[in-house]
Amino acid sequence: MMLKKNPALTGCICGAAGFAVAAVLVITLVSTSDKKERNSVRTEQALSDIEDYIISNVNADNIRNFLRYMTLKPHLGGTLGETELAGWLASTWEEQGLDEVHLVPYEVLLSYPSQDLPNLVRILDASNQAIWISAAKQKPLYAPEESLPEIPFTFNGYAAAGNATGEVVYAGYGREEDFKFLEENNIDLSGKIVLARYGHIFRANIADMAEGRGAIGVVLYSDPSDYAPEGSDIVYPNSYFMPPSAAPFGTVKLKDGDPLTPFYPAVESAYHIPQDEAPIPKIPVQPISYEDAWHILSRMGGVEAPSEWQGDLNVTYRLGPGFQQQDLRLNLDVNNIYQQNITHNVIGIMKGSVEPDRYVLVGNHYDAWILGAVDPNSGTAAMLELSRVLTQYSKETGWRPRRTLVFCAWGSEEYGLLASVEWAEQFGKQLADRTVVYINIDMAIEGNYTLRTKSAPLLYDAIYSSAKKVPNPDPEEVAAGRPTVYDTWAHRRPDPRQPDMPLMQFIGSGSDYKSFQHNLGIPCTDFRYTHDNKTLGEPMYHTLYETFELVDEIYDQGFEFHKAVTVLWGDLAVVFSEMDILPYSLRAYADFIARAYYDITTQYSALIASKNITMEYFGKAVENFNSTIITFEGNLQNVDFENPLQVRKINDQLMMVERAFIDPLGLPGRPEYNHVVTAPSKKDAYSGTAFAGLTDTLVAITEASEDQLDDLWRTFSHHLAAVTHFLNTAAKVLTDDLW
Amino acid sequence: MMLKKNPALTGCICGAAGFAVAAVLVITLVSTSDKKERNSVRTEQALSDIEDYIISNVNADNIRNFLRYMTLKPHLGGTLGETELAGWLASTWEEQGLDEVHLVPYEVLLSYPSQDLPNLVRILDASNQAIWISAAKQKPLYAPEESLPEIPFTFNGYAAAGNATGEVVYAGYGREEDFKFLEENNIDLSGKIVLARYGHIFRANIADMAEGRGAIGVVLYSDPSDYAPEGSDIVYPNSYFMPPSAAPFGTVKLKDGDPLTPFYPAVESAYHIPQDEAPIPKIPVQPISYEDAWHILSRMGGVEAPSEWQGDLNVTYRLGPGFQQQDLRLNLDVNNIYQQNITHNVIGIMKGSVEPDRYVLVGNHYDAWILGAVDPNSGTAAMLELSRVLTQYSKETGWRPRRTLVFCAWGSEEYGLLASVEWAEQFGKQLADRTVVYINIDMAIEGNYTLRTKSAPLLYDAIYSSAKKVPNPDPEEVAAGRPTVYDTWAHRRPDPRQPDMPLMQFIGSGSDYKSFQHNLGIPCTDFRYTHDNKTLGEPMYHTLYETFELVDEIYDQGFEFHKAVTVLWGDLAVVFSEMDILPYSLRAYADFIARAYYDITTQYSALIASKNITMEYFGKAVENFNSTIITFEGNLQNVDFENPLQVRKINDQLMMVERAFIDPLGLPGRPEYNHVVTAPSKKDAYSGTAFAGLTDTLVAITEASEDQLDDLWRTFSHHLAAVTHFLNTAAKVLTDDLW
Repeated sequence: MMLKKNPALTGCICGAAGFAVAAVLVITLVSTSDKKERNSVRTEQALSDIEDYIISNVNADNIRNFLRYMTLKPHLGGTLGETELAGWLASTWEEQGLDEVHLVPYEVLLSYPSQDLPNLVRILDASNQAIWISAAKQKPLYAPEESLPEIPFTFNGYAAAGNATGEVVYAGYGREEDFKFLEENNIDLSGKIVLARYGHIFRANIADMAEGRGAIGVVLYSDPSDYAPEGSDIVYPNSYFMPPSAAPFGTVKLKDGDPLTPFYPAVESAYHIPQDEAPIPKIPVQPISYEDAWHILSRMGGVEAPSEWQGDLNVTYRLGPGFQQQDLRLNLDVNNIYQQNITHNVIGIMKGSVEPDRYVLVGNHYDAWILGAVDPNSGTAAMLELSRVLTQYSKETGWRPRRTLVFCAWGSEEYGLLASVEWAEQFGKQLADRTVVYINIDMAIEGNYTLRTKSAPLLYDAIYSSAKKVPNPDPEEVAAGRPTVYDTWAHRRPDPRQPDMPLMQFIGSGSDYKSFQHNLGIPCTDFRYTHDNKTLGEPMYHTLYETFELVDEIYDQGFEFHKAVTVLWGDLAVVFSEMDILPYSLRAYADFIARAYYDITTQYSALIASKNITMEYFGKAVENFNSTIITFEGNLQNVDFENPLQVRKINDQLMMVERAFIDPLGLPGRPEYNHVVTAPSKKDAYSGTAFAGLTDTLVAITEASEDQLDDLWRTFSHHLAAVTHFLNTAAKVLTDDLW
Repeated sequence: MMLKKNPALTGCICGAAGFAVAAVLVITLVSTSDKKERNSVRTEQALSDIEDYIISNVNADNIRNFLRYMTLKPHLGGTLGETELAGWLASTWEEQGLDEVHLVPYEVLLSYPSQDLPNLVRILDASNQAIWISAAKQKPLYAPEESLPEIPFTFNGYAAAGNATGEVVYAGYGREEDFKFLEENNIDLSGKIVLARYGHIFRANIADMAEGRGAIGVVLYSDPSDYAPEGSDIVYPNSYFMPPSAAPFGTVKLKDGDPLTPFYPAVESAYHIPQDEAPIPKIPVQPISYEDAWHILSRMGGVEAPSEWQGDLNVTYRLGPGFQQQDLRLNLDVNNIYQQNITHNVIGIMKGSVEPDRYVLVGNHYDAWILGAVDPNSGTAAMLELSRVLTQYSKETGWRPRRTLVFCAWGSEEYGLLASVEWAEQFGKQLADRTVVYINIDMAIEGNYTLRTKSAPLLYDAIYSSAKKVPNPDPEEVAAGRPTVYDTWAHRRPDPRQPDMPLMQFIGSGSDYKSFQHNLGIPCTDFRYTHDNKTLGEPMYHTLYETFELVDEIYDQGFEFHKAVTVLWGDLAVVFSEMDILPYSLRAYADFIARAYYDITTQYSALIASKNITMEYFGKAVENFNSTIITFEGNLQNVDFENPLQVRKINDQLMMVERAFIDPLGLPGRPEYNHVVTAPSKKDAYSGTAFAGLTDTLVAITEASEDQLDDLWRTFSHHLAAVTHFLNTAAKVLTDDLW
């Protein structure tokens, strides 16, 4: 996973107001992807057989063994470690018996720490002598592989090399409102080094905002209040809380994919834009541990930071600028290097017997910042076990999937989804034409508390249905009367708007589904077992301590949670590969859209009305989408399953619904996002807001100066018309109408 | 038709150099769309039956009657005349028995002459008295309807209203080189009125270049040397040559579609850009007749114009600026008005029985500048007879097309393809997903000499094959041993590169196929019976004299040429609706591309080499496309026609080949064109040049100043990589490979 945030926060964006939508628009929450209605009797039985087989045959020990092998050493994107792992994945799939396995290379711009010169943060005295120096590497604490010589110096991917010295300013979580707070308090960042804590927004946005305000460097750390709330006594390896020496890596590139080949694949014939135009920082950025951050924070001067910015280090957090001892300055010395390296996807195929030209994609990235036992190789291990079970079933029974299964192991995801973006750029036309679903697992587990799921609304019902089939890996939950993964999910993470249902989070961005959902219009989901919400994400995320031992001894002894995720993944994959009629939940999509429409029109009604802009056509389009779906689903009762072209026509119409929302011109000011419904909000690349092109513009209007308003309102009106058009298109594709 | 030019000139762009390509790349000209190979025995017989039926049942008298009715009065886009005709077309199709007929409205920006104040060109003396005034309308010469009161004042669509007075400058054909010639001779256009002759380039480009050079008005005329070469004695109504009073109408809008809703449909929810940003002139532009042009040219001063600019009027053509009598000035008084009006498409459906979600589009616009007996209603009459024959066959035999036939009568084409562009914008996703071909007939005839065909290379073989079936409407040609339309076409308009084959012209732009070919990637063709090449196009084009009588008494007595075009249209339509495997000529496409590659690398090799830019990857992609096609076609030998999903898969792959060349980002500087192979050249919106994004940029480089070169070379390299990528994509879509 490239970035993340507290899922509970994400799920709340629609707010409780959603309930009132029913008064405005007809909303039906009845599941309509009942398998029996969408399958012939023959298909139904065959599908049931393979679902049972998956549950019986996914083996936790196998997953453990796969994970053990992959996490023996680092396998950072574009390095020998990654290439070797790619080769091993390919040969594993070949041995399992996939029909085709290919390494798909891209030459991309990557970034590494120097092998000789560590990146260091220093406190300098008046004579430029360092009175304190940060750690070059994270300290080995427990697992033997933490001490391997190839563990890299601590760094942020794509941070510029540079040696900057200046006063330090503390910027809290580095959100836009945090930087605004500093401005309001007359703290100028020009020539300063920003110290910010990670946790609420994508670190590339923090670095970008700092750079835009004239900062000459950024230092990032994670505060124990967010990642070790129970105190430093019980941290890794004694718990899953963050130890003082952890310094999480991560990319600071703003846009996804190879930074030098936007929109086109990084193949040998590619055109490369000049590097100074790439969406990467021009200033040094560096992560440090919280024990190191203490050395800076404890010396800082200036006024006290606001209470929300105060953390759990034993200091009073101050804004700066500079230190109490006025002749001290902070020095940031970053020695990263850029390299054009080859990174590989590994693509394995299990060819469809009936519709080989329809694809069910399952995928996970296999590159890791360091050892990657959680992110991503818990997912890779699950994928290998899934392919093993499906190939075994094929050998035992002669079964072939109806549609083609495509297994995707992505390279260099951590740098910003590099190889999945390039692949989608290279094969996007075929994929958009032929793919029915992409099921991404960035990591199989980052905890053992509950399932958490991001999903396109079209997949909601299928996910609910599959999750209800997966046995609960938590014996205590079973004992409490919750025998399935679904039950615990609904119990521990209910949807605030419908407390009897589990929470479905917006698909947003942050992992390899981005291109498929947001550029190609393929419905995507990403799920995992996660932690409770006591921390801002998984505490060991992107640190040295994401070890096999963390998984094996703390998160998932016995690997039953991995097994549950693998079974769910497999069940969804075969449901989409086998069902006669694709089990898309059209009504869930209509509901999702109606709620978003309600939220926007409620929240911004006065603002929009002040400009005499009508939301009437948008509202009519929302209603029209809903009523068209009811008609379409009514007609499904009459499907002749013996007529393959009739079934294909229905499925092709269903596939077009998500495609209908793709605007080839992109969202306002964001040509790299095309999906007008599900694109993440602009200000924070991780989060998902329905109709982000509208809501981002409305937010900007509320914050804009007078001279910007005309352009912003024009953008709003223009995009409103586009959104309305695509919504009407999504209804039309379910019909034969060309009028 | 919106604009046109001598077809022989167009066809020569590739040049004789094409022959040498065989030395570089393997080129196979063998037709590979042999119907027997691509059809089951059952399909082959059924198709043969309906082809015979079309030949036997298309009735020339019916076409004549349809044309007579439609040309009784004017039916300019957005007027009552157009709306009435739309209603009549719809009810005719309903009576014939099409399954569905719909009027599809768009509210678009149109432009009309004032009903009270004519547009006039005057010569003013020193006291501002007019010593000469141009005709307000074209003079009735023969047909009664020429005298109807609703005949509009002479105008150019979208020309700005304005009253401009200044010195006149003669700019020849108004091409870029003509304007350059004036500059080189120090004739400044600032504050001047440009007089240019129509014939070589799109009039909107003439107006745009004049406006860009500071001209305050443009007067256009057609010189008798181009349109009445045998002299004014034998002109309409005694021949098809242009009479002295003819003043051709035409649009001066630069881009296609509604000027206020670029990229999105002009539906009720549309956003409208400010009119001052629309691609329409800000200066008055006006057409006049050549008898009126004489009054200006005969008085002009300045040096003699170059010999190419001298015409057949009995004067010495001079450049100006101004008149010999120095106190005279030219006055241009244009009183056009803009209106947001409704224009309609009429869409008629004959639903497919096997693959209702695959569309064969046939279409023609029905709006006309005035009476439109040639452009476009010769084509409309043919379309009505085609739909009549096919519905009659259906009634008699129970036949239904395998794929859906969609009949399209387009509104407001003359203004710049308005309603077809809006329709493609509204339904583009479905159309790109489902359409196998679009067969456009802008006009059925504009002469009786030979067929002339513009086409996407994918359709070449099917067109050859169909044309070989159509009986020759010219008895003299039959007597000369050329019994089919194909024979005369090959004889009278041979391909200079392959003299035993008829000439296929580039698809370019200029009629309603534009959106389908260039934005959606649907292979298109446009054909008609045309004149010989003694004139620069059809002399009565867009004038008052495009009357039923012109057609009935001069061009096509007996309507046998109309019948031949109707039969060809019908044959192609049923071939594409019925054949099991779509009869695309992949090898013709590979050949077309290889020749273009050869032409570019030959013509510009030194220039490209001077920048160390490699054409190697492009060349490899060309070869790869060719070799993939050979493999794909080899596999066609093994098709199981009893497996509908296998046949569908092959057809879906075939359909994707043209789509593969669509770059959603558009051509360099031209987002309104997406097809990287077939887009017309930038400088002249009518013409077709393969890989126009490359060749236009290379031409610009040869003409650029030093400070523009870096950007232009960057554009070239970037687009070269894009073209290479899409060419590789076009090969990949014919495979199952995702690597």
